[in-house]
Amino acid sequence: MCEACNQKAEILTREGESRRSFLGGTAAMATAPLAAAALSSEAKAQEAASPLGASNVQSWAAFDTSGSFAPHTIPRRAAGPKDVVVEILYSSICHSDIHTYKGDWGMPTFPLVPGHEMVGRVTGVGAEVTKFREGDIAGVGTMVDSCGECANCLADREQNCLNGTTFTYNSPDKISGGVTYGGYSKKIVVKEDFALRIPPGVDLAGFAPLLCAGITTFSPLNHWDLQPGQRYGVIGMGGLGHLAVKLAAAKGAEVVVFTTSKDKLEDAKSFGASEAYLWSDEDAMRRQMGSFDLMLSTVPVAYPMQPFLNMLKLDKTLVNVGALFPIEGAHGMMMGFGRQSLAGSMTGGIAETQRVIDFAAHHGIAATYEMITPDQIGAACEKVVRKQARYRYVIDMTKA
Amino acid sequence: MCEACNQKAEILTREGESRRSFLGGTAAMATAPLAAAALSSEAKAQEAASPLGASNVQSWAAFDTSGSFAPHTIPRRAAGPKDVVVEILYSSICHSDIHTYKGDWGMPTFPLVPGHEMVGRVTGVGAEVTKFREGDIAGVGTMVDSCGECANCLADREQNCLNGTTFTYNSPDKISGGVTYGGYSKKIVVKEDFALRIPPGVDLAGFAPLLCAGITTFSPLNHWDLQPGQRYGVIGMGGLGHLAVKLAAAKGAEVVVFTTSKDKLEDAKSFGASEAYLWSDEDAMRRQMGSFDLMLSTVPVAYPMQPFLNMLKLDKTLVNVGALFPIEGAHGMMMGFGRQSLAGSMTGGIAETQRVIDFAAHHGIAATYEMITPDQIGAACEKVVRKQARYRYVIDMTKA
Repeated sequence: MCEACNQKAEILTREGESRRSFLGGTAAMATAPLAAAALSSEAKAQEAASPLGASNVQSWAAFDTSGSFAPHTIPRRAAGPKDVVVEILYSSICHSDIHTYKGDWGMPTFPLVPGHEMVGRVTGVGAEVTKFREGDIAGVGTMVDSCGECANCLADREQNCLNGTTFTYNSPDKISGGVTYGGYSKKIVVKEDFALRIPPGVDLAGFAPLLCAGITTFSPLNHWDLQPGQRYGVIGMGGLGHLAVKLAAAKGAEVVVFTTSKDKLEDAKSFGASEAYLWSDEDAMRRQMGSFDLMLSTVPVAYPMQPFLNMLKLDKTLVNVGALFPIEGAHGMMMGFGRQSLAGSMTGGIAETQRVIDFAAHHGIAATYEMITPDQIGAACEKVVRKQARYRYVIDMTKA
Repeated sequence: MCEACNQKAEILTREGESRRSFLGGTAAMATAPLAAAALSSEAKAQEAASPLGASNVQSWAAFDTSGSFAPHTIPRRAAGPKDVVVEILYSSICHSDIHTYKGDWGMPTFPLVPGHEMVGRVTGVGAEVTKFREGDIAGVGTMVDSCGECANCLADREQNCLNGTTFTYNSPDKISGGVTYGGYSKKIVVKEDFALRIPPGVDLAGFAPLLCAGITTFSPLNHWDLQPGQRYGVIGMGGLGHLAVKLAAAKGAEVVVFTTSKDKLEDAKSFGASEAYLWSDEDAMRRQMGSFDLMLSTVPVAYPMQPFLNMLKLDKTLVNVGALFPIEGAHGMMMGFGRQSLAGSMTGGIAETQRVIDFAAHHGIAATYEMITPDQIGAACEKVVRKQARYRYVIDMTKA
């Protein structure tokens, strides 16, 4: 990633005036309504009283594993001196949200308010906040707190905090008690260190998915150091996969997509892939043997991995960011033969999340999405499971 | 690995005279009898006739999957201009031999003559051979031929020859037809490029296991660049594991062994480990969480890998060289959380195999072994499976 990307975005983000004037008067208004115009009367009353005070906030919660969502009022703490108050404009649906309410990873605490991809307007800042001003646009991703002092936090790996990361939802809330509530809600109060700067001029709804799907697919490109011209395989092209294609193509990689959905073949190319194949195309699969410098699997369920491991060059790595279950279908001898690796990867630290946002802004990348209203969350989740999402569902939180 | 090791061994290996005088007159004679003194009358007759001619050679073969071995005569080709003829002195039993005759990796061609860890005396050299002279000591490992021209061969990865490596046994023999026969035999004819130089002054029987177990456990140290002082976990301490400990300790790593055999705990320390634990010691296992820079699994069967993956530091790798079956008990989410990798690795190229031999000679490392006679092969294989080997069985081929 070029340093210029970071620098440019940094400057833009701190240009508070220009960003606000953009939000108030440009064509992008359609996707970035001034939050104030859409505030519910309840929220208006609260903000009028004290934008930093504790509040009760409307959210959409799952009350069991059925996949039904219903309005639910949750408490948000009073903003501390280093907190920002964010009125959520757009919140997108990640497959993790579905795994969580279904209990795939252990039974969650109900009512569950998922959502860890959100973009909103800063409506209040604590006295010691330096990164944001009121009116700024901020994003919140997969985590909202960590100790900030352990070796991992100091290494920008807050997601691996040795004293326990606080994830954005269904995580013990060390500040307020209980569990955390995520982005399927109208407001969040978060430490400024865990809020990301969203540059002006971008499609805010399309940027929400960068907060998890974006960083999750961007971080492996950095860690495994994918170079321009190298062959990069993306297995599964849903919410994560389609961003993986866009990001890697922008880095100059030769991207090849493997999908199970025929209609995604053309989409893959429009996102920047040079080739796209169905898993069922045995000839094409065979031709890829030993040809990839890096592969990324975004498939959210267990599946036979060895055919894809066989597509790697000697010593190369398949990174699994999707199938967060017992590994199936990888074979010790086959992996040993070419010294291939199967790696796991999840999300990224806050600094790297800022990098993907700035990279995307610089390269004109955003998620491809369908906008829904909060009452459509349950139906949209079902479509995600049925592979019908094209490619992220973004909840318009102003329509509530 | 220090360059001096290679250079020193290189010089020593080419000192033909001094090596021969060593073989004839030192205390090490006990483990390195002059091959001529032990030649069978049959072999003597053949060699007298023409040391480079085609010959029928005594071997010990499995005729089925039962694990019984019986004498069997096999053909060895006439030596070509670039071939060396090696009278095998010591051949050791690798767990791969057992997997092969059992059909664990597909049914082999019977009669099967296993053995890919052998050391012997060069009794004939082709006209164009430059690396060996008669009387030299040579080793042969897991492979005996490759194209020498493909990208992988040119990159010293003959084991990954794009035109098909010829492995030492049960592999299609492109020169003579049929399949290759391994080291459970009294003689082998091999391209000089696939014969390794064994420095004088070493325990020849203890060096045989370096040809597979040694290179297999040495190569990951190089590829994953284990540094002095780094923590290195060795899971399973049999034939491979005990050499892994010795080699890594000689490199200055802090080696920790995980074994299922109580009596191996002390042995581990005598081999250079700083700590050794039983898998059943839950407290000890828990204390190792997140502490290793690299781990090596030499366990020859499938087992739950995640508890060991959890012992890695962030971003680190567990290298599996043992369980050459479908991977079990690794978990996508757990691996993703700390971005850990599970890698396969098998053997190493010829140049790297020479490096481990020279490294071992320089550091005074050899396998710990029990010597057996050829009629004990079947019984020894059973003991390997029952974890009773301490730590390699070396077949004395002069006792036949």
